[in-house]
Amino acid sequence: MTQLESALKGIVTPEMSAVAADEGHTPEDIRRLVAQGVVVIPANVNHKGLKPRGIGAGLTIKVNANIGTSYDRVNVDEEMDKLQVAVEAGADAFMDLSTGGDIADVRRRLLAASDLPMGTVPIYQAVIEVVQKHGGIVNLTADHLFDVIERQAEEGVDFVTVHCGVTQETLKRLKNQGRETDIVSRGGAFLTTWMLYHKKENPLYEQYDRLLDIARKYDLTLSLGDGLRPGCIADATDRAQVQELIFLGELSDAARQAGVQVMIEGPGHVPLNQIETNIQLEKKLCGGAPFYVLGPLVTDVASGYDHIACAIGGTLAGLAGADFLCYVTPAEHLKLPSVQDVRDGVIASKIAAHAADVARGHPQALARDLAMARARKRLDWDEQIRLSVDPINAAACRRESYPEEEDVCTMCGPYCAIKLVKEYFGEKK
Amino acid sequence: MTQLESALKGIVTPEMSAVAADEGHTPEDIRRLVAQGVVVIPANVNHKGLKPRGIGAGLTIKVNANIGTSYDRVNVDEEMDKLQVAVEAGADAFMDLSTGGDIADVRRRLLAASDLPMGTVPIYQAVIEVVQKHGGIVNLTADHLFDVIERQAEEGVDFVTVHCGVTQETLKRLKNQGRETDIVSRGGAFLTTWMLYHKKENPLYEQYDRLLDIARKYDLTLSLGDGLRPGCIADATDRAQVQELIFLGELSDAARQAGVQVMIEGPGHVPLNQIETNIQLEKKLCGGAPFYVLGPLVTDVASGYDHIACAIGGTLAGLAGADFLCYVTPAEHLKLPSVQDVRDGVIASKIAAHAADVARGHPQALARDLAMARARKRLDWDEQIRLSVDPINAAACRRESYPEEEDVCTMCGPYCAIKLVKEYFGEKK
Repeated sequence: MTQLESALKGIVTPEMSAVAADEGHTPEDIRRLVAQGVVVIPANVNHKGLKPRGIGAGLTIKVNANIGTSYDRVNVDEEMDKLQVAVEAGADAFMDLSTGGDIADVRRRLLAASDLPMGTVPIYQAVIEVVQKHGGIVNLTADHLFDVIERQAEEGVDFVTVHCGVTQETLKRLKNQGRETDIVSRGGAFLTTWMLYHKKENPLYEQYDRLLDIARKYDLTLSLGDGLRPGCIADATDRAQVQELIFLGELSDAARQAGVQVMIEGPGHVPLNQIETNIQLEKKLCGGAPFYVLGPLVTDVASGYDHIACAIGGTLAGLAGADFLCYVTPAEHLKLPSVQDVRDGVIASKIAAHAADVARGHPQALARDLAMARARKRLDWDEQIRLSVDPINAAACRRESYPEEEDVCTMCGPYCAIKLVKEYFGEKK
Repeated sequence: MTQLESALKGIVTPEMSAVAADEGHTPEDIRRLVAQGVVVIPANVNHKGLKPRGIGAGLTIKVNANIGTSYDRVNVDEEMDKLQVAVEAGADAFMDLSTGGDIADVRRRLLAASDLPMGTVPIYQAVIEVVQKHGGIVNLTADHLFDVIERQAEEGVDFVTVHCGVTQETLKRLKNQGRETDIVSRGGAFLTTWMLYHKKENPLYEQYDRLLDIARKYDLTLSLGDGLRPGCIADATDRAQVQELIFLGELSDAARQAGVQVMIEGPGHVPLNQIETNIQLEKKLCGGAPFYVLGPLVTDVASGYDHIACAIGGTLAGLAGADFLCYVTPAEHLKLPSVQDVRDGVIASKIAAHAADVARGHPQALARDLAMARARKRLDWDEQIRLSVDPINAAACRRESYPEEEDVCTMCGPYCAIKLVKEYFGEKK
């Protein structure tokens, strides 16, 4: 049985209990949220050693790190290092997006190397196998695509991005409207190329039941991909994007009716003033399914610092109700991320997730900030370092610039405001 | 005559014309906005070589970089380097917050080294002179403080932070309420120490007319400081903060009546869900005076990455109507910033300012993002690098990871989505 099927039958699974313990909820609370389809616990029945995480309403916001090889850069050890730093920096899940080298081997090594839920985009492997054997994306067959999905599910992958909403109807909306950057999703582009060439419907839409059968068998959580996510500010919240989201809403209903856990992927490049609208639309059109957002990036020009543009958009998205933030690294739009880029990306998204949890009034998040405030008031530097988002970096900053009076820092030295007024004000009443 | 006095008499100054040209407005528009007190042009009559910048309603959001020596770190060359990188990274103004070494000498060298408007916090120099000569902050006199302000004004300083709203009444509100981190503003802490020791009113409040006389003489813009800004999330938007803001509203009225340009400084640590409220309060209580915000920082635990917490808060503040963002560097809460910290801080705040301009629909900001989107569609890498927030860094990223096919990047290589679907979709209709 999937987590959803169990929840609907009133059964509290060990995974639900584990999530409840982490989040400060009762197991029954988690069961109810999973049954409603507003929380998912990506936990493939074949994934040994998984520590389950819950994603969705009422829980802390989770962060995903995308890693994996590319055509131009295949270094499996480096990918293993990226996973390691992502875990250390606090990622709650990761996706292997490998498109270079022995993709299946990379995936198996990554899956075995941590206790995090792991996601993939199976069409990458399917397309690359087809390109290598038959020389072109258009030679992809539906059977081959579903075969790859099943192979990955059998190995223990916990969630898969499937661009089921890229339909002939969606593409018609896109063509009628026109766009600045058309399609920037790789999976979306693969399917579109195939669909326009063959003048056929997307097999992931047309044979959605086949996908649901595989997903139910392994409790593979479907992450319904946004193949038409906007690739620039000008394209945000346009008819093509909203049309796809309407399809994803229908497909999320069908998944839940089949006992399959489902979440929805969201944009992309979105100006700050449209983020709340995007979250409300997803929650309404998709029956409250957990929303997994990429960014959103609040400007197109932050190349080299897209982790910051992502953190800005992610925080407001989180406040508005997004549940799962996919990081973007400083390297986005420029290159495959390095190990350091992965680390910087996870930390920026962890700041966003935490700041949104604070704004949503999550008790655990507020308690951590309050503990930091009190450590500052006490001029307790060890505790300040321990509580910071990256204690290793905070400790290094302090070490490299040590003050004469050790209870302050080199910004203000003896003119430290907190130290000056300490005697005049007591503890908070 | 000050810019405000000229504007009220219907005179368009060269400074107004310069701002108009930069911002795509007519000179008469700028005159009207200055006359209304919703735009300031900090431009001391004695500041030679200044390129005036406008701050306020209808203009692009500006970014300030704080630099300067501290008790523990006095290296004037390093401060000159910080100014240089701040200018290169796009800062629109800077403040010299030096508290170490020969403060007056550092200030004069910094003032001469760029065409940016420069701000200071004169009470720093006054207190440090008193501490050095007389051994304690409590020996500060009102005459000495006003003397320092006048000396700095005469030298050409364009704007000064003056904590005029730290009154006995404000401190009573603070004491009655209690707080987690009391006072975290250095200027606020100096004045509070003096006021509580002497049981006297703040001279900057009691003798505000004296301040206005100096400001009018040199067209020194007053930046009414928030001495009681919240130092942690738990203290945000509390009675002490709002009480001070009410006083600042009254004082901003008085300044404008005296022909003195004025802006208001704001918090501090504020959770994302309270930022819009803070901006609306300032605009309402202070008659639309330009709002100069420090951060706001949306969490207390981002030590080492406070430039990101600042960019998150600054973007939402900008969307809600903030006019002037004071950067926060990664070093905040830990140490005096290095040259690299200053660079990282300015860039993060420039991203915030630009993203907020995009969200506010500013034509120049939208045009830049659109140009980037089109460069991406064309796979035009030179133009993408030129348009990014930090072209030097973007070019370095690309150089260090070069793809086999030179029209793509190493993230996707030949599987580049834009390249794949290019043939199927034309230019936007």
